[in-house]
Amino acid sequence: MKKYSEMTREELIFEKELLKKRYEEKKALGLKLDISRGKPCPEQLALSLPMLDLINSETENFKNENGFDIRNYGVVDGILECRRLFGEILDAPTENVIVTGNSSLNLFYDLIAHAMCQGVPGGNGPWCECKTRKLLCPAPGYDRHFAVGEYFGFELIPVKMNSDGPDMDEIEKLISDPDVKGIVCVPKYSNPQGISYSDEIVERFANLSPAALDFRIFWDNAYTVHHLDFEGEMDDIPSLLRLAEKNGKGDMVYMLGSTSKITFPTGGLAAVAASAANIADLKRMLSFQNIGPDKINQMRHVLFFKNLDGVLSHMKKQAEIIRPKFKTVLTVLKDELSKSGIAKWNTPKGGYFVSAELMEGTAKRTVALCKEAGLVITGAGAVYPYGKDPGDSILRIAPTFAPVSDLPDAMEIFCISAKLAAIEKLLG
Amino acid sequence: MKKYSEMTREELIFEKELLKKRYEEKKALGLKLDISRGKPCPEQLALSLPMLDLINSETENFKNENGFDIRNYGVVDGILECRRLFGEILDAPTENVIVTGNSSLNLFYDLIAHAMCQGVPGGNGPWCECKTRKLLCPAPGYDRHFAVGEYFGFELIPVKMNSDGPDMDEIEKLISDPDVKGIVCVPKYSNPQGISYSDEIVERFANLSPAALDFRIFWDNAYTVHHLDFEGEMDDIPSLLRLAEKNGKGDMVYMLGSTSKITFPTGGLAAVAASAANIADLKRMLSFQNIGPDKINQMRHVLFFKNLDGVLSHMKKQAEIIRPKFKTVLTVLKDELSKSGIAKWNTPKGGYFVSAELMEGTAKRTVALCKEAGLVITGAGAVYPYGKDPGDSILRIAPTFAPVSDLPDAMEIFCISAKLAAIEKLLG
Repeated sequence: MKKYSEMTREELIFEKELLKKRYEEKKALGLKLDISRGKPCPEQLALSLPMLDLINSETENFKNENGFDIRNYGVVDGILECRRLFGEILDAPTENVIVTGNSSLNLFYDLIAHAMCQGVPGGNGPWCECKTRKLLCPAPGYDRHFAVGEYFGFELIPVKMNSDGPDMDEIEKLISDPDVKGIVCVPKYSNPQGISYSDEIVERFANLSPAALDFRIFWDNAYTVHHLDFEGEMDDIPSLLRLAEKNGKGDMVYMLGSTSKITFPTGGLAAVAASAANIADLKRMLSFQNIGPDKINQMRHVLFFKNLDGVLSHMKKQAEIIRPKFKTVLTVLKDELSKSGIAKWNTPKGGYFVSAELMEGTAKRTVALCKEAGLVITGAGAVYPYGKDPGDSILRIAPTFAPVSDLPDAMEIFCISAKLAAIEKLLG
Repeated sequence: MKKYSEMTREELIFEKELLKKRYEEKKALGLKLDISRGKPCPEQLALSLPMLDLINSETENFKNENGFDIRNYGVVDGILECRRLFGEILDAPTENVIVTGNSSLNLFYDLIAHAMCQGVPGGNGPWCECKTRKLLCPAPGYDRHFAVGEYFGFELIPVKMNSDGPDMDEIEKLISDPDVKGIVCVPKYSNPQGISYSDEIVERFANLSPAALDFRIFWDNAYTVHHLDFEGEMDDIPSLLRLAEKNGKGDMVYMLGSTSKITFPTGGLAAVAASAANIADLKRMLSFQNIGPDKINQMRHVLFFKNLDGVLSHMKKQAEIIRPKFKTVLTVLKDELSKSGIAKWNTPKGGYFVSAELMEGTAKRTVALCKEAGLVITGAGAVYPYGKDPGDSILRIAPTFAPVSDLPDAMEIFCISAKLAAIEKLLG
């Protein structure tokens, strides 16, 4: 079979008829499929259920290791043993870790709100006083990061993503603008492309010299233990905080993480690792905001995992569940799309997504065709600031939540739709 | 015995010597007592432990009543059945309730941060743009409310508390200033005086006509079910939201509450009840901030309490535990202080505190004397904005956390210290 770009008009029309027939057959099945959401599936959630048994009415001791009653007020920065656990997960010293809340997104939001209202160490006032504040957004990226920036009135500046991370030349140039207050990124198994930043990229992050003295890197390491094959290839990135501290630039970094996709989304924990000055600043903030995080839930997590090894062996079980789903998605993509030459996609070693780059100008149409045939996928443009994909070409596939039995149909619909959209485009 | 104010100098010196002797005897015991913190005691916390058994690895159904998996993402405003429960607790329709977070303090903080950064319905922009913003603070009041206001750069305006609530004439006058953006109060069993606002006061709140169109009443109904004697007298206040809605002024009201002192502080839930416009605004905010509250913990609470009756019968058991503590505090106050005429105090029907009004200019000295004798009490001034008690006379006593056996000694030290401070003052 030829590439679409090499077909004659007649060949394209013929191909379109074939696809149209397949599309109508699928549509006639009246399926309701959804690969839009980066959610764990029930089987993944079930792995964490034993955690709920670990603290109960028979528990004899509710004191944590340094003597605080986990049922009562206090300990705004989280119990010591849980801070230690997150220190291992995020690769940061325990004293540089605060555990609070249930999602890194919420932490990101709260950090921005804090910077907006009170300012952060190194700066000269609340960010709200900078009317032309800007946030750098490597894109494609996480739509909800961009949404938070927009909600707080930042101008979102997209930064190109390469295969080893964002374009650092561009970032180094952009941060000479003192209105650029920060950058938000997912450095490992990135959402949606599954890219892990190279050592060189991380080192360049750790050595940025922004004009804004209160510039912050919001390093949302959401997928740090989310490998897909614990017996195969796994990515590893250095600790940005440790590297930046070596350069005397530790105050620039907030490393974020959570157990949202380790235990229970919304029922899990979140943590931030930061420099001593930032931790002191955040503890002060928390002393106003908070009466303390849910220490019972923190202790559940500590008892369940014990340490990083416990987390990794838990994540290995999750990988067993979701790897076949990723495999199915990638197999159908290859079978259906590789010959047509209309799409590229990544083969992630971890994280929650497969990102497909379709023919320019066909992503929106593909989403519409999918919808008509009973398949919900993330909206076109969602992975770009302001929802605007300049090429209208990137779509995000989330394989984890749907039953594996749904995925062949879902991906077939996806591929047929992408091909139809491409041919429509080529035929003009 | 005479009142101190009627004693001669010689009589005062004689009384002082007697007190000094008793004080030294107490001090020599080397006690370590603490009545500073409004915390539930372990026996109160133990009442909620069966809640921890209700969701576990044997649980078969994790769907809530309208079909959401409580272990997974979503439902930013809280599960329906839990919103209904808080609707009963706060006296508001379910559709006007959002359940999120673990403390009403945190909700207050987040609401202020939201108003500061984005503004609220009715206003014309973020509050941070009003450089001379002000917050009304009925005082004595809750120190952490005042601290949040100060942290966000509000000028705190104290408002006099009367026996039936704050001075409404003063409030009605103050809100003609468009820079007055809100008022924060604890309307039932107030912190620290245990005052419940009268119906008339609540109605006047519901009918305020502030100059600022985005003025907000932060109505922290933290102690709404915290009666001390379920077979005796209990206070009741009308629902401010319902009254304000009748006046077409519902947007002015955020009613806040939590289970911090019902189940577990930090391991509990918090809720806000508000008008349709405010709820829509807050749900939008949460859709940016949050991936959803801990729905597993919400379901635990629902299964444990079922409804308001369940909450009340639980609180009745708590009252059995803490009533003797309040009784001891009040008995010692009466025995030790009533004849001296140097102090007044309230006899609360609920809440967490007894507030003592000592002779002017003696509160700080009393705290210092207590400390020297091994008793920690809340710092003088803490119940006033900026920590400044104009009369240096109000002290807050928190009877719940200490073992009941500690309280006679603690209160004796308190009263001896207060009397010594008064005599020192009178002797000049």
